[in-house]
Amino acid sequence: MSTKPPSGTRDFLPRDIRRREHVIGVVRRVYERYGFEPLETPAFENIETLLGKYGEEGNKLIFKILRRGEHEASGEVDLALRYDLTVPLARVVAQYQSELPRLFKRYQIQPVWRADRPAKGRFREFFQCDIDALGSTSPVVEAEQMSAVGEVLTELGFADFRILVNDRRILTGVLNVAGVSDSDHEGALIALDKLDKIGEQGVTAEFVARGIDKTAAERLLAILRDVYGASQPAATDGSAVTAARFDALELLLGKTPSSEAVEQLSDIVRLLRESSVARHIYLDPRLARGLSYYTGAIMEIVVPDLASSLGGGGRYDHLVGMFLGRDVPACGFSLGLERIIFVMTERDMFPSTLASRAIDVVVTFMDDASRIDAIKFASELRARRLRVEVHPEASRKFDKVLKHASSRGAHMMAIFGENERALGQVAVRDLATRQQRAVALEQAADFIGRART
Amino acid sequence: MSTKPPSGTRDFLPRDIRRREHVIGVVRRVYERYGFEPLETPAFENIETLLGKYGEEGNKLIFKILRRGEHEASGEVDLALRYDLTVPLARVVAQYQSELPRLFKRYQIQPVWRADRPAKGRFREFFQCDIDALGSTSPVVEAEQMSAVGEVLTELGFADFRILVNDRRILTGVLNVAGVSDSDHEGALIALDKLDKIGEQGVTAEFVARGIDKTAAERLLAILRDVYGASQPAATDGSAVTAARFDALELLLGKTPSSEAVEQLSDIVRLLRESSVARHIYLDPRLARGLSYYTGAIMEIVVPDLASSLGGGGRYDHLVGMFLGRDVPACGFSLGLERIIFVMTERDMFPSTLASRAIDVVVTFMDDASRIDAIKFASELRARRLRVEVHPEASRKFDKVLKHASSRGAHMMAIFGENERALGQVAVRDLATRQQRAVALEQAADFIGRART
Repeated sequence: MSTKPPSGTRDFLPRDIRRREHVIGVVRRVYERYGFEPLETPAFENIETLLGKYGEEGNKLIFKILRRGEHEASGEVDLALRYDLTVPLARVVAQYQSELPRLFKRYQIQPVWRADRPAKGRFREFFQCDIDALGSTSPVVEAEQMSAVGEVLTELGFADFRILVNDRRILTGVLNVAGVSDSDHEGALIALDKLDKIGEQGVTAEFVARGIDKTAAERLLAILRDVYGASQPAATDGSAVTAARFDALELLLGKTPSSEAVEQLSDIVRLLRESSVARHIYLDPRLARGLSYYTGAIMEIVVPDLASSLGGGGRYDHLVGMFLGRDVPACGFSLGLERIIFVMTERDMFPSTLASRAIDVVVTFMDDASRIDAIKFASELRARRLRVEVHPEASRKFDKVLKHASSRGAHMMAIFGENERALGQVAVRDLATRQQRAVALEQAADFIGRART
Repeated sequence: MSTKPPSGTRDFLPRDIRRREHVIGVVRRVYERYGFEPLETPAFENIETLLGKYGEEGNKLIFKILRRGEHEASGEVDLALRYDLTVPLARVVAQYQSELPRLFKRYQIQPVWRADRPAKGRFREFFQCDIDALGSTSPVVEAEQMSAVGEVLTELGFADFRILVNDRRILTGVLNVAGVSDSDHEGALIALDKLDKIGEQGVTAEFVARGIDKTAAERLLAILRDVYGASQPAATDGSAVTAARFDALELLLGKTPSSEAVEQLSDIVRLLRESSVARHIYLDPRLARGLSYYTGAIMEIVVPDLASSLGGGGRYDHLVGMFLGRDVPACGFSLGLERIIFVMTERDMFPSTLASRAIDVVVTFMDDASRIDAIKFASELRARRLRVEVHPEASRKFDKVLKHASSRGAHMMAIFGENERALGQVAVRDLATRQQRAVALEQAADFIGRART
């Protein structure tokens, strides 16, 4: 029987967990500082909750759970594993409407599961760290969320991330101007989302494969190239460039719903002009985002050394309506924990203190008659908030116990033996200096507590 | 479309999460103080990892995941949701043997899923908080684990819990003496595990239903009644009673492998004689535990006002061998998070501070021209570690904003308006005293920071 975890999943040993907890701790602290409150939903949902929310490709990647009992043999499914944190949130908002504040801001840090082909850095079980705000159409919502994720990344030590911004309606307008017919928009967006991976030629080929006019593809790519232009932050030094770009977009799109989007997006960017996240924001009219539920501004975080994004989000004003029957305006941002950890590991960004000791003190005994004393002493140390392991077996083979204690990071060892017991003492050894001394039993806990480094 | 979570699962709103995090925080701190290190495993396992580990009834309760892609239509399953944290641990120990310390102590706090019929307090998704130690047969392992879970419960505020202890081999010996044949032992144990729920008559009936001799059932129940006797803590005041009970067991069982178990169990109990958990330990020779992988001491935690247990555990020296090919001695203890929270809620044991504020300050603006100032000011407050919500919409309707701010627990509000902007000020309102004053903008963040309660 294989003892590996299932394909695309991982076991997290203690060292891995320390790193994950470090990142999650920063994410949680910053999210709470922005007024988001925690929420958790079940690992699985009724299958009809998920189907039809992630597009055709998404439906195929959902892990489906077999019905149980007498229905098991039928091969029918009734449940499915959480695919993202946004759809369950929309269900929650519809269900608990009356209990939730009119402006509901929640964060959620939980795993999701997608049956993607596993690859380096791509997993079938991965954590998302989401913030969402429901109940407001104000651009302040988008601005605050970009500020929050920017602060998370800055606190984690990232300096070179970019938050790309765009609006789905701008893309729609650009698609129209380029001559892509309405019914082809979704296919065109999926193709365009792959631009960074497969290039302009690849996108054009995918347009053709999807039965979209080749001329439209070429016109579209030309427009994006022109408007995208040189890469400058949108909200600080490059604000003149950005303003010119927004103007170019408005000129291109004329008086359409898309020009309203240009107005709103430039408003969001302007709100952050004096914020510390300003220098990270870049206008990217090519940005499409894969998911079909976005209705307004969309955002994505990239770093130079990772082809895929560290996170992304956007406005989705109709998703809650699919559950509630009436729309609730909403906007959210999701950070990908695994990708953040991947880049931080590659760049050696974790603080060295994380690798530190799992335990502070090892208590060991040399004869079975000392066991009760050893256990009692351990509880005295623990009352002083020290992390203590009682070595469970009587041993005169110090080398092995010493090696074990050191490997677990302990800095002190307390040794109970027959001689010490007779004198009411315990031998205390400093594992760094290798100095050992006999200490009166009633003073030993204080002695070790003081020696804590 | 239903917006409820799937049957047997729950959504956790912010207030629920605060309670869960409080309990998990205590569990984690105490477990770490005992030298356990964190581990996490995937939500699903290859199905062959789980099948055959939990007995026939367990197999039926496992959530099974359909194969994907071209295999989806076949109705075949290849994965299954985690059913407990012990079997995945055994797989992990077999897989990472060379990287793990010879004595490996891990804790794991994760959800598991069982397709049990949902009932009050019984869920299909629930968290377990496990500690396990691998690599030692010493009774110190069991003693330390009982001490750890006792400390968790004590820190959470429980005073009246009992840790029931027994040994599977004692039960085996008693079953033999009563005349239950070897092949009937497993069935007899499953029946006996229900004694508290269905009574002696129910157990006898289930013995008969399982084709076990009725006389054996009656003899067995008589022995347990005699040995169980009056209820006294095993390790403190009742130590004389306990010693007598261990003696009675030894007499009954004679020189068999079972009498060795009596010796070991009394050793475990004796080790804790001077510990704070001593007064919670009770010998219970009826204790059987449902899972089939236990090989030695077994333990279970009960409180008077809950029919089921708060947790349990035991020694399982052969489980790792099913994955590794050679045995590794192991012992573990699992606390049930949901049941602990259930009892703590019923008894109103949560600290009142948990219900406290989600945010500290609401920043609001009265005209769109003040938005950038408001956002900038919020980031100054956040730099002081305050939790701040920027109310996203310009509003002169104070009542609504005030109500929202109070409902979220904020104690201060900062108001940006045209007049204040002209004077370089911000209006600061104390939501408790309802006092409002204008403060110079550059001093306002410090002013609010100092007012923090």
